[in-house]
Amino acid sequence: MSEDAPPFQTQDHDSLTIPLLSHQQRSINSTSQVAIVGANVCPIESLDYEIVENDFFKQDWRARGKVQIFQYIFMKWLLCFLIGGFVSLAGFFNNLAVENIAGVKFVITSNMMLAQRYWMAFLVFSLSNLALTLFAAIITAFISPAAAGSGIPEVKAYLNGVDAPGILSIRTLIVKIVGSIAAVSSSLLVGKAGPMVHTGSCIAALFGQGGSRRYGLTWKWLRFFKNDRDRRDLVTCGSAAGIAAAFRAPVGGVLFALEEMASWWRSALLWRAFFTTAVVAIILRALIDVCLSGKCGLFGKGGLIMFDVYSANVSYHLADVPPVLALGVIGGILGSFYNFLLVKILKVYNLVNEKGTFYKIFIACTISIFTSCLLFGLPWLVSCQSCPSDASEDCPTIGRSGNYKKFQCPPARILTLQLSTMLIFFVTCFILSIFSYGIVAPAGLFVPVIVTGASYGRFIGMLIGSWGNLSHGLYAVLGAASFLGGSMRMTVSLCVIILELTNNLLLLPLIMVVLLVSKTVADAFNGNVYDLIMKVKGFPYLETHAEPYMRQLTVADVVSGPLQLCHGIEKVGNIVHILKTTMHHGFPVIDESPHSESPVLYGLILRAHLIALLKKKAFLCTPVQLGADAFRHFSSDDFAKKGLGNVDKIEDIELTDEEMEMFLDLHPFTNASPYTVVDTMSLAKALILFREVGLRHLLVIPKISSRAPVVGILTRHDFMPEHILGLHPSLVRSRWKRLRFQFPLLLKIF
Amino acid sequence: MSEDAPPFQTQDHDSLTIPLLSHQQRSINSTSQVAIVGANVCPIESLDYEIVENDFFKQDWRARGKVQIFQYIFMKWLLCFLIGGFVSLAGFFNNLAVENIAGVKFVITSNMMLAQRYWMAFLVFSLSNLALTLFAAIITAFISPAAAGSGIPEVKAYLNGVDAPGILSIRTLIVKIVGSIAAVSSSLLVGKAGPMVHTGSCIAALFGQGGSRRYGLTWKWLRFFKNDRDRRDLVTCGSAAGIAAAFRAPVGGVLFALEEMASWWRSALLWRAFFTTAVVAIILRALIDVCLSGKCGLFGKGGLIMFDVYSANVSYHLADVPPVLALGVIGGILGSFYNFLLVKILKVYNLVNEKGTFYKIFIACTISIFTSCLLFGLPWLVSCQSCPSDASEDCPTIGRSGNYKKFQCPPARILTLQLSTMLIFFVTCFILSIFSYGIVAPAGLFVPVIVTGASYGRFIGMLIGSWGNLSHGLYAVLGAASFLGGSMRMTVSLCVIILELTNNLLLLPLIMVVLLVSKTVADAFNGNVYDLIMKVKGFPYLETHAEPYMRQLTVADVVSGPLQLCHGIEKVGNIVHILKTTMHHGFPVIDESPHSESPVLYGLILRAHLIALLKKKAFLCTPVQLGADAFRHFSSDDFAKKGLGNVDKIEDIELTDEEMEMFLDLHPFTNASPYTVVDTMSLAKALILFREVGLRHLLVIPKISSRAPVVGILTRHDFMPEHILGLHPSLVRSRWKRLRFQFPLLLKIF
Repeated sequence: MSEDAPPFQTQDHDSLTIPLLSHQQRSINSTSQVAIVGANVCPIESLDYEIVENDFFKQDWRARGKVQIFQYIFMKWLLCFLIGGFVSLAGFFNNLAVENIAGVKFVITSNMMLAQRYWMAFLVFSLSNLALTLFAAIITAFISPAAAGSGIPEVKAYLNGVDAPGILSIRTLIVKIVGSIAAVSSSLLVGKAGPMVHTGSCIAALFGQGGSRRYGLTWKWLRFFKNDRDRRDLVTCGSAAGIAAAFRAPVGGVLFALEEMASWWRSALLWRAFFTTAVVAIILRALIDVCLSGKCGLFGKGGLIMFDVYSANVSYHLADVPPVLALGVIGGILGSFYNFLLVKILKVYNLVNEKGTFYKIFIACTISIFTSCLLFGLPWLVSCQSCPSDASEDCPTIGRSGNYKKFQCPPARILTLQLSTMLIFFVTCFILSIFSYGIVAPAGLFVPVIVTGASYGRFIGMLIGSWGNLSHGLYAVLGAASFLGGSMRMTVSLCVIILELTNNLLLLPLIMVVLLVSKTVADAFNGNVYDLIMKVKGFPYLETHAEPYMRQLTVADVVSGPLQLCHGIEKVGNIVHILKTTMHHGFPVIDESPHSESPVLYGLILRAHLIALLKKKAFLCTPVQLGADAFRHFSSDDFAKKGLGNVDKIEDIELTDEEMEMFLDLHPFTNASPYTVVDTMSLAKALILFREVGLRHLLVIPKISSRAPVVGILTRHDFMPEHILGLHPSLVRSRWKRLRFQFPLLLKIF
Repeated sequence: MSEDAPPFQTQDHDSLTIPLLSHQQRSINSTSQVAIVGANVCPIESLDYEIVENDFFKQDWRARGKVQIFQYIFMKWLLCFLIGGFVSLAGFFNNLAVENIAGVKFVITSNMMLAQRYWMAFLVFSLSNLALTLFAAIITAFISPAAAGSGIPEVKAYLNGVDAPGILSIRTLIVKIVGSIAAVSSSLLVGKAGPMVHTGSCIAALFGQGGSRRYGLTWKWLRFFKNDRDRRDLVTCGSAAGIAAAFRAPVGGVLFALEEMASWWRSALLWRAFFTTAVVAIILRALIDVCLSGKCGLFGKGGLIMFDVYSANVSYHLADVPPVLALGVIGGILGSFYNFLLVKILKVYNLVNEKGTFYKIFIACTISIFTSCLLFGLPWLVSCQSCPSDASEDCPTIGRSGNYKKFQCPPARILTLQLSTMLIFFVTCFILSIFSYGIVAPAGLFVPVIVTGASYGRFIGMLIGSWGNLSHGLYAVLGAASFLGGSMRMTVSLCVIILELTNNLLLLPLIMVVLLVSKTVADAFNGNVYDLIMKVKGFPYLETHAEPYMRQLTVADVVSGPLQLCHGIEKVGNIVHILKTTMHHGFPVIDESPHSESPVLYGLILRAHLIALLKKKAFLCTPVQLGADAFRHFSSDDFAKKGLGNVDKIEDIELTDEEMEMFLDLHPFTNASPYTVVDTMSLAKALILFREVGLRHLLVIPKISSRAPVVGILTRHDFMPEHILGLHPSLVRSRWKRLRFQFPLLLKIF
């Protein structure tokens, strides 16, 4: 050991000589066990991804024949198909509803404008917006607060292993779909991509419930999905389907799920996600084919976002590189600044939200009125101009998109897209989208970011004017890409999504450059917007990489107590006591056999399985070890993971005093192959094991064998920086704390 | 434990009572330690991806300041930039050379044909082909046999953790580039995508060497890359760059590396691979811009493969679905049949290759002559026709691509693409590509598969004729997609590569469907072509998923002996003896301290580190534990992983008898945090840990603490089915052996 070792190294040395159990009993992990889900604070817990290998399950697997394996594989693909189908229907319905509601609103307002009844038009516009926002806010606040916001942070946390009741319930699903339609139709600057991802995940999670006994929707073939691993896979496919439906970008959807959402990925999952989004693409195409024949009201044709570069003949040369690089740099700075402001506003909103539902709804209404005023009022600031003589299109353009808008101008005079117009539009979008995100209604970030980015991109394109070869539309695309890159920090998935949106592969090199530059610049300031939001919401997200200071700590330095043990054959009363007095979800099982002088670690048993055992009441009168007899009373359904937070509670089980004196043989139900680490292992390597294998509990065993066979249990919370830095405050000042270069000065100004 | 437990379960029970060390000494892992690399049999070894956490390295990390971290990050990106640059240069040079060599050959032959000197034309054609093939075969056979074949299986194995000398050497690189140009120019039906992937990987590996002392190319900033983890990341980026350069498909390249090549993936790596391919895309575009001004000889414009659907106005309806599905099914069947035949032929070639270099070259020449005869002779079989009166293009078309070729026909008569033409072409390609792959020259599979698939796709398109809405060119694309899907079994990456090749995003849903169907159908018969080739070549590839029978085995059932231990303070003579008598690459270090009655496992030390210690000869006269003193004699360079198979051998170190009696304190150089599993852990869970964390050695510790502190070491070879099924032959007949449904009957016919 080096001479200038930091103080915590000495502590480490001590731990080899003093008994560890007493050492850790002094530290209790006080990390918060709640997080903000949507708009409410909820308790959270971890998901079980580990394969529980106990004798009972081994027996169950051995009993599975080819038929069961076929059922499982068939159902996996059928569920993906169904997820794709329902998500595309939800996406289509969303699109249809928004275009019709917003379309009717626009037609009425527009006709009043043409009739010069401006005040009336404003009243209709703002009141209809207010009504829609109010509706969205009320259903969200009262029926399912978990449906507020984009949902992407919550789903991302779920896929990382953090569960919260209600994130993926049917209630959330309905409110998310209806609320998103209302919010988007109400002219709020909120997107639908995030809500679509959440919708897709909800649909996938519902299919993964293994049916519902309450509603009589049970099917034997669904029983294999009653575990967190298969549900995670389905939710990953669902989130891919959400993006695919929102942007009609099937490949982009898969990549989005892979790059941004999923924490664990296998190539088999890639294939299933691809299948799901292919289903979405095909069904959406068929539905839109139906609508093109004019049966869907005001429903338009084409993608959702039209950059108008579809048919553009893109050619670019070296001279175009500097403005493109500049766009990337500006996008990176703006994007990280956007993230910074968004998080600040979100914190303020969280404070207000704590005061009650009324305040939440009040904020939403305020934002709606503010938005209506801006959207209606700003165009008046622009002065009217006469039509240019060399106009290549109709002037003014009425009833379709175009550069020359009549608005309130006198005949033969129009509003054009001027530099000042673009600047005002950009600033408005920037501010509105930041303030609109946190309201108590489904609200996505993708579309606001795209619109904001496109507006500053076009602004810069106009500034550059005829110096470059690129059209203004192309600058708008690149601006959107840079702002997306600066805010969301994805690369491949954003690139493919933008390509699929613009339908122009020739843009590829330019978009790649812009995304790389903006992400690089933005990463110097802060993190991905979803990660920042997750942090504000309090989700214990497990990062892939270990922080450098974790290499200098051992597992024994962070493991917290007190540790609760079970014995291989345990008294019922003791089990009830342990379950009632702790909130732990896993307990080491110890064998103190009369043959060996020291106790031996047999394995790990889950709280849910203990409760299932207590519920069955198949107790023993004497402490004897059962053989295969133990399985008689149980079916694998008894130990299947319940869906949707339907957790059996220990308080609900009533046991007589007589039963409390009886015994349970835990051996057949104990996971006899839990992953273990030695207490002297470095924390960094324990984290890698924990994260890569996807654990919920990691048993810590002592290095020197003469002591107790288990020292403690590591959970997700033990790897959180708050916990570690709380235990070892000296690390806060250590230069090891952060590898990432930061420019805190720039951000501390605010 | 259940009553009907299989026999090996009983063995498991025994192992809890009898001493394990004697139990495993009876089984020695006899798995082969060699594999066929390119065209030669070479020894292989595993790569070290685990972070070695010994006191020396910890000290070294602590000494790294912000400057070093900046150097490391900067170099990571700079190397990616350089890889992208060099790979794009290699790709461009390859393209330029092939188009010029093949072009000159074509022009000369074509002029002779026009002059009706047919025999002379054939002579020139076949002799130039033979000369080029001979050249490629000779340089491959004599200079670098590792450059034979596509290289994708070798690189895939490398990224899985299997190293072989010469896979990624500079010699292989040069032969691969030059040989690939010669082979492709020689009209052999071999591709250049696979060789480009190998070229990219070689370039990346060379940059990851940390400079070269021999050539004076050392730079302090490069020292951080002297480990297998960073090299693996670079090679992943290099393989992505290879596909990007071969197909001008940057996004497809990243996805190919992700889906097919890499065994471990992080989102940070996604970003760097994306950066690398962006560099490739931009440099290639710039180079082609230069060539468009006519400075590159016969070098043409556009992508490498022209499906002629670039400008096609694609519209399709429900009626087009059945033929598209049929294409997918046929592609799947043909693709798996192709894989099956390819592997059979490869096995035959391997037998012939073993006989000597002359036979290898003889095969290559035979294939070349055979190819020349077919290519020149087959068109004579087609009867000449007169130009159609409604021809939409020049008839005949001379000097450019077109449907009406004059060839040997009398004036005003032409060869057209008839049904029989397409069928003959398809069969020829199918057979030629299978026979051409295994020859001793760089030979890719992508292009032959695309050409073969496109020919049968067009054949089916012609069969369907005017019943459908899709053009023949589109059928060719879909046929290529289905054959690729059936043979290579990728989804997202193939989809994106085809989109980038055709430059038409409207095809997306059709391509997705075709790929999904063909992969599903083909997976029922056999595996991915690269996986099959890897198996034939004998690479111990570690799969992600555990086979079901592994759940029924414990670690103790497969761990093999004899185990060699070191002591914390060990006699030099003992270390030399251990290193000379075993080929193991890692040894457990045991402390038998006088204070504890039983020995304690201190950690794991690598063979390379032991050799480095012996080489320095910093021995101790008495067995005392050193503190920080131990570091004085060493720099981190001494323990850096050598590049390119430059391994120090124990035989090269000369020690006096006096030195052999001295001692070494191994503690500061022992990885004190190795991953461990208990011997009763199920093999499936040990494999998950081994695979997900990317280990080379996994220590097995006993469950009951009173015995020796370590029971054995698991390596990659212990997880190979051959080893496990060799130890437990009863499993071969067990229904647990395979989950995958197979139709062995169909394939056993051959």
